[in-house]
Amino acid sequence: MDNFTFYSPTYFVFGRGTENEAGRYVKRFGGTKVLLHYGGGSVVRSGLLDRVKDSLDQEGIAHVELGGVKPNPRSGLVYEGIELCRKEKVDFILAVGGGSTIDSSKAIAVGVPYEGDFWDFFAGKAEVEEALPVASVLTIAAAGSEGSWGAVITNEDGMYKRPYNCEKMRPVFAIMNPELTMTLPPYQTASGCTDIMAHVFERYFTNTKDVEITDRLCEGILKTIIKELPKVLEDPNDYEARANIMWAGTLAHNDICGVGREQDWASHNLEHELSALYDCAHGAGLAVMFPAWMTYVMHHDIPRFAQFAVRVWGCEMDYDHPEETAREGIARTKAFFHSVGMPTSFAELGAREEDIPKLLETLQIEGRTEGFFMKLGPKECEEVYRLACR
Amino acid sequence: MDNFTFYSPTYFVFGRGTENEAGRYVKRFGGTKVLLHYGGGSVVRSGLLDRVKDSLDQEGIAHVELGGVKPNPRSGLVYEGIELCRKEKVDFILAVGGGSTIDSSKAIAVGVPYEGDFWDFFAGKAEVEEALPVASVLTIAAAGSEGSWGAVITNEDGMYKRPYNCEKMRPVFAIMNPELTMTLPPYQTASGCTDIMAHVFERYFTNTKDVEITDRLCEGILKTIIKELPKVLEDPNDYEARANIMWAGTLAHNDICGVGREQDWASHNLEHELSALYDCAHGAGLAVMFPAWMTYVMHHDIPRFAQFAVRVWGCEMDYDHPEETAREGIARTKAFFHSVGMPTSFAELGAREEDIPKLLETLQIEGRTEGFFMKLGPKECEEVYRLACR
Repeated sequence: MDNFTFYSPTYFVFGRGTENEAGRYVKRFGGTKVLLHYGGGSVVRSGLLDRVKDSLDQEGIAHVELGGVKPNPRSGLVYEGIELCRKEKVDFILAVGGGSTIDSSKAIAVGVPYEGDFWDFFAGKAEVEEALPVASVLTIAAAGSEGSWGAVITNEDGMYKRPYNCEKMRPVFAIMNPELTMTLPPYQTASGCTDIMAHVFERYFTNTKDVEITDRLCEGILKTIIKELPKVLEDPNDYEARANIMWAGTLAHNDICGVGREQDWASHNLEHELSALYDCAHGAGLAVMFPAWMTYVMHHDIPRFAQFAVRVWGCEMDYDHPEETAREGIARTKAFFHSVGMPTSFAELGAREEDIPKLLETLQIEGRTEGFFMKLGPKECEEVYRLACR
Repeated sequence: MDNFTFYSPTYFVFGRGTENEAGRYVKRFGGTKVLLHYGGGSVVRSGLLDRVKDSLDQEGIAHVELGGVKPNPRSGLVYEGIELCRKEKVDFILAVGGGSTIDSSKAIAVGVPYEGDFWDFFAGKAEVEEALPVASVLTIAAAGSEGSWGAVITNEDGMYKRPYNCEKMRPVFAIMNPELTMTLPPYQTASGCTDIMAHVFERYFTNTKDVEITDRLCEGILKTIIKELPKVLEDPNDYEARANIMWAGTLAHNDICGVGREQDWASHNLEHELSALYDCAHGAGLAVMFPAWMTYVMHHDIPRFAQFAVRVWGCEMDYDHPEETAREGIARTKAFFHSVGMPTSFAELGAREEDIPKLLETLQIEGRTEGFFMKLGPKECEEVYRLACR
């Protein structure tokens, strides 16, 4: 096990009706004037935004609003949010929405007290020293941003996505009411669950040996999604299944599944170029990329892929031909994504093989590598994209 | 899933050599004058205390010392610690040791700013409003106190143990170097692992249905201990196994395994009277009490005990006779405890059946019940103690 630090100070408030406690928690964590940041009209139409505003009003907390966050959140709105917060002297940012809204909120939070361009952080040119506190009322189980130290923003000047992580971006609280996810369309629910599984995959396929405890946590989260997702597709109002998925989504990405070991993240980065170019759902892009990546890297560590097949998918171990077991695990993964309505190829996603050079260009892979389980240079990344076309 | 809050703000610093960072983290969390609290001579003899002092000196942090914490930590030393801290104007408490030392530190931390008797908190007569920050350099994987909000103290005036939980007692950081646990005698290592398993059992046997994600985490931690404990008994210097156990010990008790569900805790409370009376290792007492409790309550929920048998112990499910599977799981639990050198009966522990009335008396069970999975009144508690004699 590698040395590590683990710090997840977010206060999680989970369950029915918890959105009505937003004001109380903003107060507890020192907010006096809040930016309510959100996406499209659904949080308005459903009445959620009003309930959150009411709870702020009850605590006497002032608030301003900025809607319009899109999936794959854009730099333009971040600049707008930073300006608004400065003008209105906002001291707390409350995201009402999913991963995109929370990521956009995090970018605004680090941008407000910074004199330069917030993109400096995402471009690796500066480190965050100060940030406004961020929190969320979560509306989709997917990105895990409600408990993570990361954010991903799409730069509109070139349409490429970049991730950034820092401790100051860890949300101070997260309000998680599974009921709020019941109205999601099945495609979004499945896409969110794919993202959750992908967050675990990135940590599960590692070169660090003998981290049994973390393997078991990873497997537990994957098995939970595999069991619960079909239930909510069958009955969108299944509270227990929604609750299991929502909490699993947080645990998949607050890094409890990644401590003490090298992580990979090639598939996420390869996918980011897909969703930036085609504006597809991140989870759907991951359903395409992961089976391709697994197929490409499987021979790097057959026992690990066999363990994955046996422990997560319940495959029988083929002791004489472990690579068959490994292959079966990947096939089961792909079949599961298909069964929940996810695309598993470029064509199904609406991506085009002839765009691969463009994807590689925006990935800026020349002269460097992606991932750690197997380091993928430009040629290998191209191979993985090609496998994803089949 | 029940509504819940989950808050685990402890900064975990895990791995080789991390005790040398103690000073840096005390500084980060605002300490300027530290009480170093510890137990017997081993942290002195091993040089650990000197390394920690050096790291405080390097950061220019003043410190005073109070050793002498015993297993099942006593109220007397807590009073002494409170007085010392007030006199020396200590503003931070650093426990160097295991659960007893950390619990004693927590009790001192809440006692210092309180005008009344610290025992008020443990007697349920007052709630903590303020506390000094507490942290630890951990030397045994067992109690999970390094990441929990609880402490258990033995009142010397009558020799009975009482637990107390509050958010203000959550440690601000925990330094966890698995190497420090390599010199533990096998009995203490096994006793610690039994405590870890017991912390999961208390949360696993619940009446709350369909909390799949938490079940899976519980099972993962149990399977980790079952796999790793025999390895360290075979080779005490197996770093990877020690590391897995140490991290599992924290996760077993920071409540990540208990959210969203009713927990039990009857076995712990029944055990507390054993270790208070006989001064035995808490884990050893739990190895005696848990199989007895399981046997007594099994029929309350056969499917849950069958799931435990199949998923944790790998038993084959007997679909026609699930109670046989349930029974097998309990037998495997008892056999495992035996195999790692733990007692599983009163006689092996050095407890006496004729003391049961005394145990029931200090438990103060008259007119109330213990536990939630099945509520146990005086008669039922007596039955469980009697089962533990076999």
